[in-house]
Amino acid sequence: MIPAHVPERRYAIFAEGRFDSAKTAHGLLRYGRDEVVAVMDSTLADRRVLDVAPDLRRDAPIVATMEEVLSHSPTSLLIGIAPSGGRLPEEWRESIAEAAEAGMEIVSGLHQRLAPEFPEARVWDVREPPEDVPLFSGDGFSVEPKVALTVGTSSAIGKMTATLEIERAARERGASTAFAATGQTGIVISGWGICVDAVVSDFIAGATEQLVLEAAKSGPDLILVEGQGSLGHPAYSGVTLGLLHGSCADCLILCADASDEEIMVGVPRPAASRMVRLYEEVAGLVKPAPVVAVSVNTKGLDDGEAEEFIARISSETGLPTADPIRYSADPILDAVLDS
Amino acid sequence: MIPAHVPERRYAIFAEGRFDSAKTAHGLLRYGRDEVVAVMDSTLADRRVLDVAPDLRRDAPIVATMEEVLSHSPTSLLIGIAPSGGRLPEEWRESIAEAAEAGMEIVSGLHQRLAPEFPEARVWDVREPPEDVPLFSGDGFSVEPKVALTVGTSSAIGKMTATLEIERAARERGASTAFAATGQTGIVISGWGICVDAVVSDFIAGATEQLVLEAAKSGPDLILVEGQGSLGHPAYSGVTLGLLHGSCADCLILCADASDEEIMVGVPRPAASRMVRLYEEVAGLVKPAPVVAVSVNTKGLDDGEAEEFIARISSETGLPTADPIRYSADPILDAVLDS
Repeated sequence: MIPAHVPERRYAIFAEGRFDSAKTAHGLLRYGRDEVVAVMDSTLADRRVLDVAPDLRRDAPIVATMEEVLSHSPTSLLIGIAPSGGRLPEEWRESIAEAAEAGMEIVSGLHQRLAPEFPEARVWDVREPPEDVPLFSGDGFSVEPKVALTVGTSSAIGKMTATLEIERAARERGASTAFAATGQTGIVISGWGICVDAVVSDFIAGATEQLVLEAAKSGPDLILVEGQGSLGHPAYSGVTLGLLHGSCADCLILCADASDEEIMVGVPRPAASRMVRLYEEVAGLVKPAPVVAVSVNTKGLDDGEAEEFIARISSETGLPTADPIRYSADPILDAVLDS
Repeated sequence: MIPAHVPERRYAIFAEGRFDSAKTAHGLLRYGRDEVVAVMDSTLADRRVLDVAPDLRRDAPIVATMEEVLSHSPTSLLIGIAPSGGRLPEEWRESIAEAAEAGMEIVSGLHQRLAPEFPEARVWDVREPPEDVPLFSGDGFSVEPKVALTVGTSSAIGKMTATLEIERAARERGASTAFAATGQTGIVISGWGICVDAVVSDFIAGATEQLVLEAAKSGPDLILVEGQGSLGHPAYSGVTLGLLHGSCADCLILCADASDEEIMVGVPRPAASRMVRLYEEVAGLVKPAPVVAVSVNTKGLDDGEAEEFIARISSETGLPTADPIRYSADPILDAVLDS
């Protein structure tokens, strides 16, 4: 969805029984521009967000019931957890219906669309693509602001987080930025975007191009596009490449981690230096886009290991390399702005 | 659609006013396994297919009315032309409704689905993907028969035709083959397949993998997968790469032509040798798949130019190079079988 005007929301987050592992909820609390007035998880009731997850930066009360949620006057209920199996669990229905009856908007990133389940409610199914996505046109080639895209050595490696940390660093320096969200958590965080993996294949690049054209409208200094998947992940590489070409990126930021696990059985995790070369070659078929920095995710390493890993990747790729969470996104931002 | 059993059809082709440029109709006549009993185009009535298009290899009467069509006892009406604008023209409705009322199946590769337009009719909307396409699983890695995929230096370069000519050459040598169709014309020709560009992006690779698993069931010597788009065409590269990884191909056949036109404004047509290297590198992230031959399309060149072009591409790429339409697919088939 690309709204002409992104509405402001006062969120309550539904995270019953699973707030600690609620990825979309954590994303909204950590990076969202909208207010969060309450989290509903009866197993953590009467505690506060920062008691449970101190790194989320924003606090809110955790409550047990929808009645308590409503007492905080939210406009919108975010379904902040993903059901196992992908279908809406029966035991969630009552709470969602109660919120809807109280006039709240229901915001959901589930694969299963909730609009048909709650036909009387105002529902924003975040994964639902707009109906009028055009084919890629090439208009994206002439976008004014610099466009930077995150790409990865594998999927689920922290591309969204890296993108948001680079954006934060840019804002702290007074640069105006636009974040183009391409997945459900990013869309909830920024209030707009298109879930590109939910678009019909023919329109992946067209959808990404529309995002960039929309992001350019506010005249930012820098557009940061959230990447998806990896050229080397067979399940998602099509989305990755459609996004790469569709974004008409001017430069790329490679996201990597220290894992040596296979991407999937029989598919080895490629070296960062190999992926730098390959992303540049494949992007270059359409528009030159150098990889200007590597953003590493050193979660799980101790400080010594993290520094060693950063030094190794920097040496192997010859690129500025930083962990924007453990340290700072500044070296990456410098490379983007200097490119 | 992947049917367990592909039904046999007796086709009539609806090509009113435009049989000469009816791509799907021509594909069915040239390569289809099903019978074609009549073509409807009142502007060419009383002539025969081979009078109008001698290279189509199969003849059929051309008639002016649906009444005449029905006199040939077809089981199915193929909508053999694409409307400009993509929507079903009002003036086609009467003929289609007449065929449906006579009990014919309506077969359509239009973007617009016809099932909702003719709710009483039996409609096969060829572009409609199956509902239960899974994510890519990796099961395709252990498929027994050799899998060959056509890839291109650009889109609309003759990948389907090359694939079908290689299949024909293989059958003429007594090899058993399966053709895995990934676009609407190929699906009509073979009677089954999935239009991969109509699948939701997340499932491009999964859909292609399912096609290959299905094609393997009959135990063929060789599976030939129809490629789509090009790694270098920004509008379609996502589909191309999802197909490349999802097919788990053992080898690739590069399709190229002699054009030096841009792929689209600002996007140069890449050299065949560059694309050989790049397809191999990108495929190799998941599973090694050498490009074993180049299939060239020399349409529009005279014999001398064609031979010169073939020699140049062969020299630049170091690969067996042939035009399967002008000459023979045998050199390509040899390379596939020897790989």
